[in-house]
Amino acid sequence: MHPHVKVIDCTIRDGGLCNNWDFTEDFVADVYRSLSAAHVDYMEIGYKNSLALVKRDDYGPWHFLDEALVEKVTTPRANIKVSALVDIGRTDEHDILPRAESRIDMIRVACYVRDVDRAVGLATKFHDLGYETSVNIMAVSTAKESDLNGALEELNESPVDIVYVVDSFGSLVPDDVKYLIDKYHHYVHTKKLGIHTHNNMQLAFSNTLLAMNAGIEYLDSSIYGMGRAAGNCPTELLLAYLGSSSYDIVPILDVLARRFVPLREQIEWGYTIPYMLTGAFNEHPRIAMAARGGDEKDNYVGFYETMTSVETHQHHM
Amino acid sequence: MHPHVKVIDCTIRDGGLCNNWDFTEDFVADVYRSLSAAHVDYMEIGYKNSLALVKRDDYGPWHFLDEALVEKVTTPRANIKVSALVDIGRTDEHDILPRAESRIDMIRVACYVRDVDRAVGLATKFHDLGYETSVNIMAVSTAKESDLNGALEELNESPVDIVYVVDSFGSLVPDDVKYLIDKYHHYVHTKKLGIHTHNNMQLAFSNTLLAMNAGIEYLDSSIYGMGRAAGNCPTELLLAYLGSSSYDIVPILDVLARRFVPLREQIEWGYTIPYMLTGAFNEHPRIAMAARGGDEKDNYVGFYETMTSVETHQHHM
Repeated sequence: MHPHVKVIDCTIRDGGLCNNWDFTEDFVADVYRSLSAAHVDYMEIGYKNSLALVKRDDYGPWHFLDEALVEKVTTPRANIKVSALVDIGRTDEHDILPRAESRIDMIRVACYVRDVDRAVGLATKFHDLGYETSVNIMAVSTAKESDLNGALEELNESPVDIVYVVDSFGSLVPDDVKYLIDKYHHYVHTKKLGIHTHNNMQLAFSNTLLAMNAGIEYLDSSIYGMGRAAGNCPTELLLAYLGSSSYDIVPILDVLARRFVPLREQIEWGYTIPYMLTGAFNEHPRIAMAARGGDEKDNYVGFYETMTSVETHQHHM
Repeated sequence: MHPHVKVIDCTIRDGGLCNNWDFTEDFVADVYRSLSAAHVDYMEIGYKNSLALVKRDDYGPWHFLDEALVEKVTTPRANIKVSALVDIGRTDEHDILPRAESRIDMIRVACYVRDVDRAVGLATKFHDLGYETSVNIMAVSTAKESDLNGALEELNESPVDIVYVVDSFGSLVPDDVKYLIDKYHHYVHTKKLGIHTHNNMQLAFSNTLLAMNAGIEYLDSSIYGMGRAAGNCPTELLLAYLGSSSYDIVPILDVLARRFVPLREQIEWGYTIPYMLTGAFNEHPRIAMAARGGDEKDNYVGFYETMTSVETHQHHM
């Protein structure tokens, strides 16, 4: 069917952006068991940021991924790899144990185009410690073309295993995704490629499908789409499409009903009008997140007028 | 930009399937004014079914579209055309006034492939009365290929203006839509084409985009996606994409916030797991609608097991 595909579930890591990583250990262990029972390939269990560089009190535990904590929620160990994301400037490479001493299998480095040197530097160290590595260039929809091309050339020469197309703003329409995939295939031809989508314009799943059909191997998703703002490509939808010969959707349906339906009643993620508008205008969702947290969360006309009055970026409208 | 495109908003007609057409006149008049202010091309204001053939008490008034009622909510008359849908076997052609005496501009006939003769017969009568007409072949994802081809050939020879690709089950993935559009272009080359999507697999907007880029002219949508089960391509999202040189999204954002956000708290439509599963399995959403209305609405594993145990159709899994 789609033998080249690997699904990386980012629920705890990207979904943590919705609740400040305030998941109980029991919740995360349940997600771990469910994903492994579904034969999902990787679980991204959080950020591996440094307690020395980021205030502990500002974030829940899945922002720091202490090894003992990871070991606790992944015991008994199941047949699924564990991934952690690091942010440039918020991680200390000396915190990272050799892979042989860690439950973590893959470390992904998130960066903007301007930081690709530092990302390659970090990823190289993680590679040398034995980890699978990726570099995820965020916000490509606002990057200068020549800068992006240069960054991709640099990644192609690096020891990084996987390079990601990341639609941080949920602003990429299918033609944009096709264009970027062609570019990544051209510049990063020695690497595997991945895609991470956001659902602001209800295109997360279709852009993921498009990428898969264009040969992209690593597909990010989240249970019930739980991820920042409009969320991600839903894991359950991707597994339904990929089919029961590769994945078992039942454990995902089970944990979704038990854990994520009640959670969604407490915390918001998914398609809302402000998130749709920031996607359509190719803007960071932070202004929409602020609007959704305020007194006028459904004043869409006011939001639109504020946005269009300060709007400076290239957009699709 | 996209000068060939016409947007047909189906909120009242398809959304009426969620609340049995229980909209107040004030609500419908508000939608009419908002759509016209947004420069949307058509408003499908309900069904033109016959009171002699369908029990009045079973449905709200927008299932029958009395001329006086339509006149009332479309006064003062605005610069937007009005459309009505009819079902084969539930409409009486003698109920239909000549277009010159009606506020209705277009009559669309919904049918299954097997009823295409009757649909062409009806649409021809409406055509002769002066209406714009379309035939919308439902559930193409379950039609036999040779039957569908024959139906399309018949439509190509008819006086019908527009022929619709209708994804009744929300089960068409992009490759399916491409295949059908190629087929429709081949068999119905003398006609304009339209598309009507459902959002079970979060593909309603992307399939609509794909169709538009393949030259399809008539694009159906609904405000906030309000339509049966998982709903339709959202009007606000389509207008955001099409841009402010063609459409004004602001009146839609306004009515959406005032009318549809509160309504959505009372009535369910949009992506839920049972609707996603019927889409993925290419099944009519009725079993999912029943499940969502029952005591075990979030028992997704149970729903999946019931569905897979009786599952007989071709599907994407």
